[in-house]
Amino acid sequence: MRYPGLRQTTFEIITIGYEILDGRTLDTNSKWLAERITGLGGLIRRMTTVGDDVDEISSAIREAIRRKTDWIITSGGLGPTYDDKTLQGVAKALGRRLVLNRRALGMIEERYRALAESGVIDSPELTPHRIKMAMLPRGAKPLRNDVGTAPGVLARHGKTMIACLPGVPRELYSIYEKELEPILRKKVRKVYRVERWFTVLKVPESTLAPRIDEIMRRVPGIYLKSHPKSAEGVSRIEVQVIAAANRRGVAERRLEKAVALVKKVIRSLEGIISEERAGE
Amino acid sequence: MRYPGLRQTTFEIITIGYEILDGRTLDTNSKWLAERITGLGGLIRRMTTVGDDVDEISSAIREAIRRKTDWIITSGGLGPTYDDKTLQGVAKALGRRLVLNRRALGMIEERYRALAESGVIDSPELTPHRIKMAMLPRGAKPLRNDVGTAPGVLARHGKTMIACLPGVPRELYSIYEKELEPILRKKVRKVYRVERWFTVLKVPESTLAPRIDEIMRRVPGIYLKSHPKSAEGVSRIEVQVIAAANRRGVAERRLEKAVALVKKVIRSLEGIISEERAGE
Repeated sequence: MRYPGLRQTTFEIITIGYEILDGRTLDTNSKWLAERITGLGGLIRRMTTVGDDVDEISSAIREAIRRKTDWIITSGGLGPTYDDKTLQGVAKALGRRLVLNRRALGMIEERYRALAESGVIDSPELTPHRIKMAMLPRGAKPLRNDVGTAPGVLARHGKTMIACLPGVPRELYSIYEKELEPILRKKVRKVYRVERWFTVLKVPESTLAPRIDEIMRRVPGIYLKSHPKSAEGVSRIEVQVIAAANRRGVAERRLEKAVALVKKVIRSLEGIISEERAGE
Repeated sequence: MRYPGLRQTTFEIITIGYEILDGRTLDTNSKWLAERITGLGGLIRRMTTVGDDVDEISSAIREAIRRKTDWIITSGGLGPTYDDKTLQGVAKALGRRLVLNRRALGMIEERYRALAESGVIDSPELTPHRIKMAMLPRGAKPLRNDVGTAPGVLARHGKTMIACLPGVPRELYSIYEKELEPILRKKVRKVYRVERWFTVLKVPESTLAPRIDEIMRRVPGIYLKSHPKSAEGVSRIEVQVIAAANRRGVAERRLEKAVALVKKVIRSLEGIISEERAGE
């Protein structure tokens, strides 16, 4: 849903993994992130999934930067194995080298020590595969992972921020909530969104829909949608009215204006409003 | 998963809908399509989700065409309402006009007549909103929708085929199975994929993983992955060996070659193969 005239911090979500492209794995991370980010007022403009391939990852990131997105959030491809290539892709997109990040190495060391102490793994030894997870694009910062071994990564490129999260959902949730969301809360432009629903009877949807579209084109910052329903032979229409603005007062005024116009249209068509309620 | 040296028909899946970008709806269509297409031997190179915006849709399609994909499959945005904009986006990307397609109109007419006869809707009248679904990019063909009102659409642009499917899952499944898959079965290059799994004990993953990577780099058309597992304090590694080729015999020879190399490596590391089995 997009509201003309509203200024929002923009996001793109890039998911990395052949297992998603092959249809083996359902990507639920993008929806989870989108819901949280939308809740903060962010605008997700695009989601992209590419495979575990340095060139594909780097192209996807470069394209998002070219579209001047404020934030790129990646998920997947941060692990210790050969086919975890996200940081190589990010480094290539930004034209930077991967360098050993001491803080990331410290986090990884600490995690493996704890895993070895609790008997989950045999040795806390920092093998090349484990050290690989501490090789970050120059200038990037690690984000602490409390439930897995691969730290998240935060990098900046011009006006675009890039946050890389692991693909394992519970690791992604943890890093997002503990490390990334506190940053986003400060940086994402506030959006106020108010909503009203009407249940309309006695008007055919084909008559109401074009009039609803007309109101939407006339009032800035609002969104209207008619959802035709029918139950037990009686056809009814659910009309959703949403208004949004960077200030609460503006959003509320826009909603009242749109609501008045919707009611006028319904009356002029001799329709009946059987219910009026606020949105979630 | 990608196998060097294997020639595959390439696909991109483009999903259209603000409800996905906003995190309200989980996109399950892409996974469903990916699984089916992968099963036919197709290679999905990228998935993209954009909003219900003509420019965004048209950009996403043009980018996929520029990447010389063989097939673009879109889902969503084919319905009767103002914010269903997929066909406008496709028309713009291809530089064609939307024209009334008689066959599409006939399909839509038939569906609304049946819905009116069964009492689901009041009138089978072809309103502008309903006629809109028969406005196809010039030269495109409709794909019959047996469970909803919006036909799917098939268009060609140079060497790229574009198939547009509705976003409602059961409508997408129906059009895919009855209309699109029969075409894909003829057009998609065959791929044979064979698989073997080993359960390996007594070798640390950190030692085995780099040797596995080495084999993968040496034998074309194969894919190896080690999955570390631990159960009841005993750490074990599941090693997956996959070989693929456009001919079955080649795939089988590649698999045997990779399997022999994997066994040699495990023996040289004094590991134990506790189980060897074929893949699903």
